[in-house]
Amino acid sequence: MALIVKKFGGSSVATTEKIMAVAKRVLDEKAPGDKIVMVVSAMGDATDDLIELAHGIDKDPYRFAREMDMLLTTGEQVSIALLTMAFKKLGHAAVSLTGPMVGVRTNSVHTKGRILDIQPDRVREELEKGNIVVVAGFQGADQYGDPVTLGRGGSDTSAVALAGALRADTCEIFTDVEGVFSADPRVCKGARKMKEITYSEMLEMARLGAGVMQPRSVEMGQYYNIPIHVRSTFTTKPGTIIREDYTMEEKSFVIRGVAHDDKVAKIAVLGIPNTPGIAHGIFSALAEANIDVDMIVQSIRNIEKNVTDMVFTVASGDLSQAKSVVDKVAEKLNAVAVLIEEDVAKVSIVGAGMLGSPGIASRMFGALAGANVNIDIISTSEISISCLIKGSQVTEAVNAIHNEFFPKD
Amino acid sequence: MALIVKKFGGSSVATTEKIMAVAKRVLDEKAPGDKIVMVVSAMGDATDDLIELAHGIDKDPYRFAREMDMLLTTGEQVSIALLTMAFKKLGHAAVSLTGPMVGVRTNSVHTKGRILDIQPDRVREELEKGNIVVVAGFQGADQYGDPVTLGRGGSDTSAVALAGALRADTCEIFTDVEGVFSADPRVCKGARKMKEITYSEMLEMARLGAGVMQPRSVEMGQYYNIPIHVRSTFTTKPGTIIREDYTMEEKSFVIRGVAHDDKVAKIAVLGIPNTPGIAHGIFSALAEANIDVDMIVQSIRNIEKNVTDMVFTVASGDLSQAKSVVDKVAEKLNAVAVLIEEDVAKVSIVGAGMLGSPGIASRMFGALAGANVNIDIISTSEISISCLIKGSQVTEAVNAIHNEFFPKD
Repeated sequence: MALIVKKFGGSSVATTEKIMAVAKRVLDEKAPGDKIVMVVSAMGDATDDLIELAHGIDKDPYRFAREMDMLLTTGEQVSIALLTMAFKKLGHAAVSLTGPMVGVRTNSVHTKGRILDIQPDRVREELEKGNIVVVAGFQGADQYGDPVTLGRGGSDTSAVALAGALRADTCEIFTDVEGVFSADPRVCKGARKMKEITYSEMLEMARLGAGVMQPRSVEMGQYYNIPIHVRSTFTTKPGTIIREDYTMEEKSFVIRGVAHDDKVAKIAVLGIPNTPGIAHGIFSALAEANIDVDMIVQSIRNIEKNVTDMVFTVASGDLSQAKSVVDKVAEKLNAVAVLIEEDVAKVSIVGAGMLGSPGIASRMFGALAGANVNIDIISTSEISISCLIKGSQVTEAVNAIHNEFFPKD
Repeated sequence: MALIVKKFGGSSVATTEKIMAVAKRVLDEKAPGDKIVMVVSAMGDATDDLIELAHGIDKDPYRFAREMDMLLTTGEQVSIALLTMAFKKLGHAAVSLTGPMVGVRTNSVHTKGRILDIQPDRVREELEKGNIVVVAGFQGADQYGDPVTLGRGGSDTSAVALAGALRADTCEIFTDVEGVFSADPRVCKGARKMKEITYSEMLEMARLGAGVMQPRSVEMGQYYNIPIHVRSTFTTKPGTIIREDYTMEEKSFVIRGVAHDDKVAKIAVLGIPNTPGIAHGIFSALAEANIDVDMIVQSIRNIEKNVTDMVFTVASGDLSQAKSVVDKVAEKLNAVAVLIEEDVAKVSIVGAGMLGSPGIASRMFGALAGANVNIDIISTSEISISCLIKGSQVTEAVNAIHNEFFPKD
C-alpha cells in the first residue's frame, strides 16, 4: 500500500484515445490499496493553441501576464476533466482538482510563478474517500486567489512538490524516454539505463546538457527527499530512480554518466592588459545583459608586456548578444582582437564517486587522446569534469569516454 | 456616474476580432466615472467543441456531471482572459475573474446549478482600483469550491444576479435582437420595439413563447429589482427596459404584446367516465414522467352516460412520450380513443393593464374571427389570454390581433 504521485506530460494526453490509454495503464499497474494522485499537463498542442488565440488580440500577449495565466490554466483543466471521466468510465472513483483547488500557493510572478507552499488537505480528503485524484499541473494560485502558471518544467515541479507535501512514497515522472542513461542514447550506442542516480548527480547532468529532467523539479525532490522515478509512458519497465543515495550494488560505478552539450560557443578576447579588474570588467558587463558564462580560462600571452588572453564559453543562443557586449568592453580595453568559435562542444563526466577515486581525470583525458580529440579548455566541479572540444568530434568523444568508464559486459 | 453590468453572449465574442470590437464599443459608450462589470459567455462554438471532446471519452459524458462542469467552465475562462487583454490593449485597466473568484456560490447540482448567494467583494475592490471587471458568466462554485455551471440561460442569470448583488444601476443584456417586440418581427411586420415592459409581463411573454429572455434571469431581476436593458450588440440604439413598473407615457398600452408558440401539440382523450379522480389519474401520470401540461379543457360528451372528453396541450418535444403515457392510462379508463393533433399553435396577448380594462378578450376573439381563424381552446391568466388555433394560421392570427391592439400610426 503506497501513496504514489504520477505525472503525465502533454504528449501522453494529446487525444481522448491517449487519455483512455493512460487511465487504463494506471489502473492496470495499481496495487490494491494504493493511493494514486495524477498530475497532468495540457493536451498536446493545447497550450500553443491558446497562445495563438492570444496573438489574435496582441502580438505580444505575454505583456498581459496575469491574463495569459487566466488563459493558459484552462489547458490543464480540460485534461484533468477528461482524464477523470476516463477513470470513472473504467469503473474507478476519481475526482479532478485544479492547482488552486489543491492549495498550491505561488508568488505573483505571472507566467513564471514559484511554489511557496502546498496545503493539500483536499487531496488527502479525496484519497481517503477512495478517489484517484487528478490534479492540474503547471499551476497554482497566488495570495489573491489568481491563477499563476509555473513556467518551463512547471508540471514536473508541481508533481514533485505535491509528492513532497503529501509525503508520498514516490513520484513517477512519465516521459518519452525509458529513464536516465549513462550517455545520450542517440549519440552513444552503448549507453545504459541507470537504475539510480543521486539528486546532485542528476542536477549536474542537467546543467551539463542532459535534457531528461528540469533542474527545478530535481531540486524540489532533493528538498523534500522524495524519490523521483523517471520512466517511459510506453512500457511498464522500471526506469531510473533519482534519490538521495544509492543502494549498495549501484555504488560500484564511480562515474554515473557522460553528458555533452553542443549548444555552446567560445569567445576569446586576445591581448588585453593583465591588470586587476579586467575579468570583472568583462564578466560584469555580460552579467548585466543576463548572459550566463560557463567555462573560463585566462592565459598569459606575453609575460614581458604583461598582456593576457581571456577565453570563455556561452550558450549558442546568447552568442550574438554576448559578442556585441564583449566588443564594446574590448574596445575600451584596447584588446588586440575578439575571436568567436562556434564549432565547439562540451563533454563531461559526472559522478559523486570521483571524489574518492584518484586518476579519473587522467582516464578521461587518455580516452579523448586515444580518439584523437584535442582538448581546448578543462573545467571541474566537485562531482564533474568537463572538456571543451571541437563540435564535430562530439560523437567520438562521448563514445570514447563512455567505453573507458562503462566497458561493455 | 453609474455602475453598469453588461452581458455579452457567445456569438458576440466568437472570434478575437469580435472580442476587440466588444471592448471598443464598451469603451466608446462609457461615460467618465462609470463603473463597468462585463459578464461574458464562452466564445461561439467553444462549449460545443468541449462537449464533443468529452464524447471522445464517453457517449454520455453528462453522467459525469461534476467533470463536465470542470471541463465546460474553461470556455468562459478563455473569453474573459482575451476580453481583458483587449481592454488593456485599448489602454483601459481591466481584470478577469472566474465565477468562483467572484464569489458566486451555487448548490451542487452540477451542469444545472442554482445561485445561492453572491459575495462580490473582489469585484468591488477591483472596480475601486479603476478596473473594468470581466467576469465569467454561467458559472460559480459550490460549498466545496468545485466549479458548477448554471445550465440554460445561465450567463444572463449570472449577469442579473451579479447586478443585484452589486446594487448596480442597470444590467444590460446584449443580444442579436434590438429589444423586446410587441410581437415576433419575423411573423408580424408591424411589430414595434417596446421601450419598457414589467418583469411579470416579460415572464408571461416568455412562458407563452417569446424567446428573447430566459425566465430565470427575469425572475432574478424582479427579485433584486434591477432594471434589465435588453439591447442589440450591433447598434447603439436603446432597446427595451424590463422593470417593476412603467414610466407614465408607457401606460397607454393595455396590451404589451402578442406572443405565439407553434411548438405545441394537442392530445384528446375521448369518452372516459366522468368520475372523481379521472383528471388526477391522467395528469399525475404525466407529471411523474416530467411532462408539463399547458391548456386543459374538460367537456361533456354524453350527459346521460356521464361520459366526458379531456383535451390538453403539451410541448411538441414531449409529444411522443406523452402519447405513450396517456395511452396506458386511457386503456385502464376504457377511453373510446386518444387523438393527437400536431398542427396547432397558441397565440396569446399579455398585459398587466387588461385587469382593469373590460372587453379585451372580446376584442381578441373578434380580431381572430375577422381573420377567419377558429379558436379551439381558450385559457386565461391574470395578465394574459391564450387561444389554441390551427398551426397553419399563426401568421394571420398574430397579425390580426396585433393590428387590433397596436393600430398603425
